[in-house]
Amino acid sequence: MTITYNLDVPHSHLKGVLSILFRWRGSVWKAVSFPLSCWLAAYYFVFCVYYFILRPYDRYIFDKVTNVLETRIDTYIPMTFILGFFVSSVLGRWQDTLKNMGWIDGTAVAVSTYIRGDDDETRAIRRTIIRYLVLCQTCVLRNVSVQVRRRFPTLEAIEAADILTPEERTLIEKTEDKYSQFWIPIVWVEEILYDARMKNKIASDFFVETIAKNIDIFRSQLQNLLKFDWVPIPLVYQQLVTFCVRLYFFICLFTRQIIKHDDQGLPESVLFWIPITTIIEFIVYM
Amino acid sequence: MTITYNLDVPHSHLKGVLSILFRWRGSVWKAVSFPLSCWLAAYYFVFCVYYFILRPYDRYIFDKVTNVLETRIDTYIPMTFILGFFVSSVLGRWQDTLKNMGWIDGTAVAVSTYIRGDDDETRAIRRTIIRYLVLCQTCVLRNVSVQVRRRFPTLEAIEAADILTPEERTLIEKTEDKYSQFWIPIVWVEEILYDARMKNKIASDFFVETIAKNIDIFRSQLQNLLKFDWVPIPLVYQQLVTFCVRLYFFICLFTRQIIKHDDQGLPESVLFWIPITTIIEFIVYM
Amino acid sequence: MTITYNLDVPHSHLKGVLSILFRWRGSVWKAVSFPLSCWLAAYYFVFCVYYFILRPYDRYIFDKVTNVLETRIDTYIPMTFILGFFVSSVLGRWQDTLKNMGWIDGTAVAVSTYIRGDDDETRAIRRTIIRYLVLCQTCVLRNVSVQVRRRFPTLEAIEAADILTPEERTLIEKTEDKYSQFWIPIVWVEEILYDARMKNKIASDFFVETIAKNIDIFRSQLQNLLKFDWVPIPLVYQQLVTFCVRLYFFICLFTRQIIKHDDQGLPESVLFWIPITTIIEFIVYM
Amino acid sequence: MTITYNLDVPHSHLKGVLSILFRWRGSVWKAVSFPLSCWLAAYYFVFCVYYFILRPYDRYIFDKVTNVLETRIDTYIPMTFILGFFVSSVLGRWQDTLKNMGWIDGTAVAVSTYIRGDDDETRAIRRTIIRYLVLCQTCVLRNVSVQVRRRFPTLEAIEAADILTPEERTLIEKTEDKYSQFWIPIVWVEEILYDARMKNKIASDFFVETIAKNIDIFRSQLQNLLKFDWVPIPLVYQQLVTFCVRLYFFICLFTRQIIKHDDQGLPESVLFWIPITTIIEFIVYM
Amino acid sequence: MTITYNLDVPHSHLKGVLSILFRWRGSVWKAVSFPLSCWLAAYYFVFCVYYFILRPYDRYIFDKVTNVLETRIDTYIPMTFILGFFVSSVLGRWQDTLKNMGWIDGTAVAVSTYIRGDDDETRAIRRTIIRYLVLCQTCVLRNVSVQVRRRFPTLEAIEAADILTPEERTLIEKTEDKYSQFWIPIVWVEEILYDARMKNKIASDFFVETIAKNIDIFRSQLQNLLKFDWVPIPLVYQQLVTFCVRLYFFICLFTRQIIKHDDQGLPESVLFWIPITTIIEFIVYM
Repeated sequence: MTITYNLDVPHSHLKGVLSILFRWRGSVWKAVSFPLSCWLAAYYFVFCVYYFILRPYDRYIFDKVTNVLETRIDTYIPMTFILGFFVSSVLGRWQDTLKNMGWIDGTAVAVSTYIRGDDDETRAIRRTIIRYLVLCQTCVLRNVSVQVRRRFPTLEAIEAADILTPEERTLIEKTEDKYSQFWIPIVWVEEILYDARMKNKIASDFFVETIAKNIDIFRSQLQNLLKFDWVPIPLVYQQLVTFCVRLYFFICLFTRQIIKHDDQGLPESVLFWIPITTIIEFIVYM
Repeated sequence: MTITYNLDVPHSHLKGVLSILFRWRGSVWKAVSFPLSCWLAAYYFVFCVYYFILRPYDRYIFDKVTNVLETRIDTYIPMTFILGFFVSSVLGRWQDTLKNMGWIDGTAVAVSTYIRGDDDETRAIRRTIIRYLVLCQTCVLRNVSVQVRRRFPTLEAIEAADILTPEERTLIEKTEDKYSQFWIPIVWVEEILYDARMKNKIASDFFVETIAKNIDIFRSQLQNLLKFDWVPIPLVYQQLVTFCVRLYFFICLFTRQIIKHDDQGLPESVLFWIPITTIIEFIVYM
Repeated sequence: MTITYNLDVPHSHLKGVLSILFRWRGSVWKAVSFPLSCWLAAYYFVFCVYYFILRPYDRYIFDKVTNVLETRIDTYIPMTFILGFFVSSVLGRWQDTLKNMGWIDGTAVAVSTYIRGDDDETRAIRRTIIRYLVLCQTCVLRNVSVQVRRRFPTLEAIEAADILTPEERTLIEKTEDKYSQFWIPIVWVEEILYDARMKNKIASDFFVETIAKNIDIFRSQLQNLLKFDWVPIPLVYQQLVTFCVRLYFFICLFTRQIIKHDDQGLPESVLFWIPITTIIEFIVYM
Repeated sequence: MTITYNLDVPHSHLKGVLSILFRWRGSVWKAVSFPLSCWLAAYYFVFCVYYFILRPYDRYIFDKVTNVLETRIDTYIPMTFILGFFVSSVLGRWQDTLKNMGWIDGTAVAVSTYIRGDDDETRAIRRTIIRYLVLCQTCVLRNVSVQVRRRFPTLEAIEAADILTPEERTLIEKTEDKYSQFWIPIVWVEEILYDARMKNKIASDFFVETIAKNIDIFRSQLQNLLKFDWVPIPLVYQQLVTFCVRLYFFICLFTRQIIKHDDQGLPESVLFWIPITTIIEFIVYM
Repeated sequence: MTITYNLDVPHSHLKGVLSILFRWRGSVWKAVSFPLSCWLAAYYFVFCVYYFILRPYDRYIFDKVTNVLETRIDTYIPMTFILGFFVSSVLGRWQDTLKNMGWIDGTAVAVSTYIRGDDDETRAIRRTIIRYLVLCQTCVLRNVSVQVRRRFPTLEAIEAADILTPEERTLIEKTEDKYSQFWIPIVWVEEILYDARMKNKIASDFFVETIAKNIDIFRSQLQNLLKFDWVPIPLVYQQLVTFCVRLYFFICLFTRQIIKHDDQGLPESVLFWIPITTIIEFIVYM
């Protein structure tokens, strides 16, 4: 989902701007193209009806009604107020998601520092700890993201990627509580850690504690992701925003028509208000 | 209270939008339906009085007064300003409540890591610690949420759910200070931990400390919930918002009528300003 | 100061709304009643002068001046901007104060967990630690809150409430630096802790540390309260807001009069703009 | 810089308000008096030129130009937007500075708790640690605040205040890297701590660690102050705000004149818009 | 990039203001000069076309179209809303970047406190730890900042600056995963720490832990920088803002022309709206 576009920026200034504007993947244009073309079709349909089908008296009524509608809609629907709250809370969530993606680096450094030794057993311990953490992350992300779910539709797919052994899979599948499944690999990691300490692979309780703390940070990040997924932004907000924006644009189909009696002969102005629509449409579909 | 609607989103785009819009449980429509219908009834009552009962001179006075009222109300009541502050502090509280719901996962993992052993006593220790934490959470949530209170109206109900033994109930009931009651199970947990360390069920002071720290995080989350419940958003805010919004809509009963002398023959426009009302009404009733 | 009104909410919906609106203690109405009645008296005085004393030409001048004033005041005094910043920083402070009230629960649980024993000496140690913490909190809150100061006007009053012994009082009074006085009980607590460890009342250094950390959190919360008290919101803000709001309402005495030549015979409209005044007045006096 | 005015508030309400409004030190009035009087002088100069020197046709041109200017300036310069961002980031910095002032209390309590003993050597250790911390704070604040710099213009002045011995001064002066100078006393403190542990003045490694952690918090607070000083709010912001406000008031010199042809004979209105100027001027000069 | 301008402020007040306004390096003027002059050229080109080439009827059409455009653009493009979100999130990122720059001070103090000894080996250990941390920081900043990349275009350049030995360079270059490269020096540091503890250069596990914790803070700060670089502000925002601002100024080329039929003979007003453009342009190019 994240489209990195930084690499385009260091080019010459103008080129950088253009290359940002005309990226297609993950861009505004892509997000907005379909709803915008639908809307435009509807708009020109209303336009044709108005000019070619309506009789003069109908047009007079149409003009009056849209006139009142336009004044009132601008005064009474506080679009920026509604969208402002919505966008800022969506953006806040996005940033929190980024922070809680499950960053394994710190834990990995701690594991490689405190679990010393070049014998095969110690290597296996280190490797298994990291594998279990990756497994935990995979399970959580599958639950949260459609893309990851598509890559790993079943536990078998994870097994095929060598993140999970068949025995472990059986153990996970035996767990009934779906929510507890996520933390099983974490419990395994802690067991390995504890055993490694007992076998003196780790030099002191203190170092065990340090690794455990890092793992707990990793785990609570993933738990936050699950929380975000489980408790979405209240439905009322979502409904309110969706409803207001749709209604707003539906009304605009009529109010933004060129009223004949005001500015005759100015079909050019038909074109110019598109950007505004685009803007607001975009924010909705983000 | 939390209505999960994420599952509806992955469907085809249009269907997703529609399914969000037409959810009823926990929706805007449900929240708004009753007050809105009351208001509409009142509105059409005023409408009828105006058209069928008032004499022309009365109408003239009515028009003038509502005209002045309308101009002034838009200029002088900063609705978005008042609601903005209110909504953002309510939303902030909601997010803090979510964060402080008492998440037991971290503590449970720590308990299962550091209190090792498959003998019956050790199992009992692990189970009792978790049971006490759940007990503490239940007591706090009963105090905070009406739904949980309904599920567990008395301590006997908690006992019936096997979270509490009769002896423990007697101990809790003996405590006079109502506020201290909440932390009794926590003190019990700490006692068990300490004993387990003395009996060498826990390998080092360090591990005791780690579990204790996790329990303290759990406890302070629940304490935050109690704080939020005990010290609500200042009454003045609540009164101010409630009063302004009611007054605003009361005045709208008159000012949003179709003034005859301006746009005759346009009863359609009666319908179109409903959404705005809905929007603001909603935010109030949230 | 905190008026809990949550208990009124669970009643039937309408009753809940009404009971919130008509609470008097700690309400908007109480806060606003005096300044509002003063203002109204002044307003009707100007009203009478205008209608009964001024000659037509004076009225003409009056109308013109107030007209210009009204236009300019709405355009040039950004009231919501000024109040927005002020209210949000006051609200932020209020929330921080709540967070830093000195919550003794965590420390108390830690003390009862790690200082074990049913002999008299150990009980005395536990009790004294908590007493000293309460003493510290009392001293700080006396300094910060007028209500607490009234309850404990002197150290003797604290002594009478059995929070302080006469010897301790003498020790505190001997300290010259007023600011250091607050932390004397904390130093005493730490001494007791240290001694208890030396006498092996506390099982390990680790547990001493845990209690000490909890006490430090408690102390730094109280220190934050002192900071808030010592460094208020910059005077310039306070002055600016006070001045603008007063001036604004003073000008409104004249500009919000019913100008005769515009809407004759509409004394009703005299009443309707009161709410706005109330609103803003309130926010100032909060 | 911090002017404490809280003590004025507990008086009777009205007196409290007045005493806040008419404080001079650190007040809006003081901050604004000089630029405001300059501006007023310029304003009345333009006023006199307009009324006594310009010929009718010049006045006509003047009126037209200022008219256009006024409309456009209100529409196109988003003053509240620009100032809002600036004021909120300045306020945020002010609050952060307050938090990071280097609060020595926690460290002092830790030192007095864990470094026990009444012999002269132990006392000297305690005293020297605190002295070094104060020294570090003094050096940093000298760098950040003009007032502290004035009190301690050279290291000799600090020496004269008994915070520094001549030998220590020589050591500090020998350090070439100016930035490293700040942390030399901290390194000394850590050395003393380490030695005290080696001589068993501190009972366990654990307590050394606790003191060291407190010192590190103290140090990082001071480091934050240095960061704020070293990396100011981006120059572009500062320039933009300064430029816009100056330009705005310069244009106001002309646009806020009483245009003769509109409201003749109303010299009173010359006075009334001063407050707005004051307000915005203030925010700039804060 | 950071232009320190604080030193200019302590001068006399007026001089301070002027010196801030007329700084060139890193200033608004520099950022804005090129796009502004382009825009002005285009503006005067349109101006000339309008006055010297268009026939009266064309001008009439031009006036009408721009008139409609102007009204609509002000009503429908919520510039402050769009820019507000963008600027505040850019500013937030800037502040986070500053916080996460990799501040080595705390780690350096910890290293010099706990790794004691004046023999050559201990000195070498201290020096190598700091060198590796600087190396890590250099590698990360190279990846994030164009200026640092220019200073150290290759690993050879870092070697030439004595931050890296040839052997270490070979080791880094052998690592295939580009992202893992960044943390190799950290792993080396941890190895040195561990060995130093084994050789009793560090007095206790506790002190190892403290140093390791400081290093981990350092590392996670650098990791945050990488995160910011890797996941930029969503492309849609960037595109939206870039597009709106360009379009807005393109339309302004026409709408801000002096319409002949309104204010003849007022070429002065051509000049006055430049600042607004400048302001908004600037915010974009920041």
